[in-house]
Amino acid sequence: MTTTEPTETALQLPADVQDLLFREARTANNFSDEQVTDEQVRAIYELVKWAPTSMNTQPLRALVIRSDEAKRRLLPLMAEGNRAKTEAAPLTVVLAADVDFHENLPELFPHFPGAKDVFSEEPGRVEVAKLNTSLQIGYFIIGVRAAGLAAGPMTGFDAEGVDKEFFADRPWKSLVVVNIGKPGENPWFDRLPRLSFDQVVETL
Amino acid sequence: MTTTEPTETALQLPADVQDLLFREARTANNFSDEQVTDEQVRAIYELVKWAPTSMNTQPLRALVIRSDEAKRRLLPLMAEGNRAKTEAAPLTVVLAADVDFHENLPELFPHFPGAKDVFSEEPGRVEVAKLNTSLQIGYFIIGVRAAGLAAGPMTGFDAEGVDKEFFADRPWKSLVVVNIGKPGENPWFDRLPRLSFDQVVETL
Repeated sequence: MTTTEPTETALQLPADVQDLLFREARTANNFSDEQVTDEQVRAIYELVKWAPTSMNTQPLRALVIRSDEAKRRLLPLMAEGNRAKTEAAPLTVVLAADVDFHENLPELFPHFPGAKDVFSEEPGRVEVAKLNTSLQIGYFIIGVRAAGLAAGPMTGFDAEGVDKEFFADRPWKSLVVVNIGKPGENPWFDRLPRLSFDQVVETL
Repeated sequence: MTTTEPTETALQLPADVQDLLFREARTANNFSDEQVTDEQVRAIYELVKWAPTSMNTQPLRALVIRSDEAKRRLLPLMAEGNRAKTEAAPLTVVLAADVDFHENLPELFPHFPGAKDVFSEEPGRVEVAKLNTSLQIGYFIIGVRAAGLAAGPMTGFDAEGVDKEFFADRPWKSLVVVNIGKPGENPWFDRLPRLSFDQVVETL
């Protein structure tokens, strides 16, 4: 940013960190060859795990696609337009909702022993899992940027196919696939417009 | 934090900002009397609007409950356990999904003229709206913390009732209500446990 907007100074977050996490961070479509380490993935999780979920449900699960073999299984399930960049990305992570998250509530929400039973009915539980997993995916994308890496989140893939291929033995539903790495050459498309404050926020 | 964990130094984000946004930030249940200004709300939006959504859909909409009259209409629709803290919060924001977000796509995704038609079918469109709004709610909560404020996000409210009371004339579906302010006295419950890295992340 070459000029300072009044909205930047109304925040406590330093302007360079505003840039790192939001303003200069961009959805990458092209990555350098630099590897993303297991240590970086762990650091991202250990940071974003603290952000809040309803009743501390924490339904997010992550499958890190690191090996060529795993990437080979994933690629045909990506939408055609997402295949080449996913193949080239140093690391790809499938972010999924554990729809049986309620099994963990005796551990995660111990002061309310009935918490698990609140979610005994499946359709409502799936909704709660999806909403909270999506919140956590938002935190995760910010966490990737906090590691100085670019994220390329995608919803264009065959989610049922991914679940069948990778999660046949467990109740995980994939929601978003994210490519992660250092940006390569010409990594960005032109920045797309954002809705104005007045289009989004109303005050009563 | 009194000790530095290896996971902190693997991130580019400075440790004090890690604390501000994730580690020391907490879900507040009690706020000081200090007001949250319109300028702060605008600054939060102007920051988090840059974070990514699928096909730049940006379905998040926000209703800021500032007046006593608006608060009086909201309170009976909150779950009983959320009512007193919502009444006491300096500002409350209803975060909702615009399920007709696709009407904006000619403006928001101009290089693909068929974008709007991809979402012509309602059930699928509602799913996309909810997923992307939830991502944006995750960004918004981080944005509240970036403003040096505490967020108290809640899903315990009568969402259909809120939609009927506030959004009868438009296609907005409320997903999360967030109290915002400076923390008051004894604002936190004890920190609840988080799932370990090995419970959440698998690598192939």
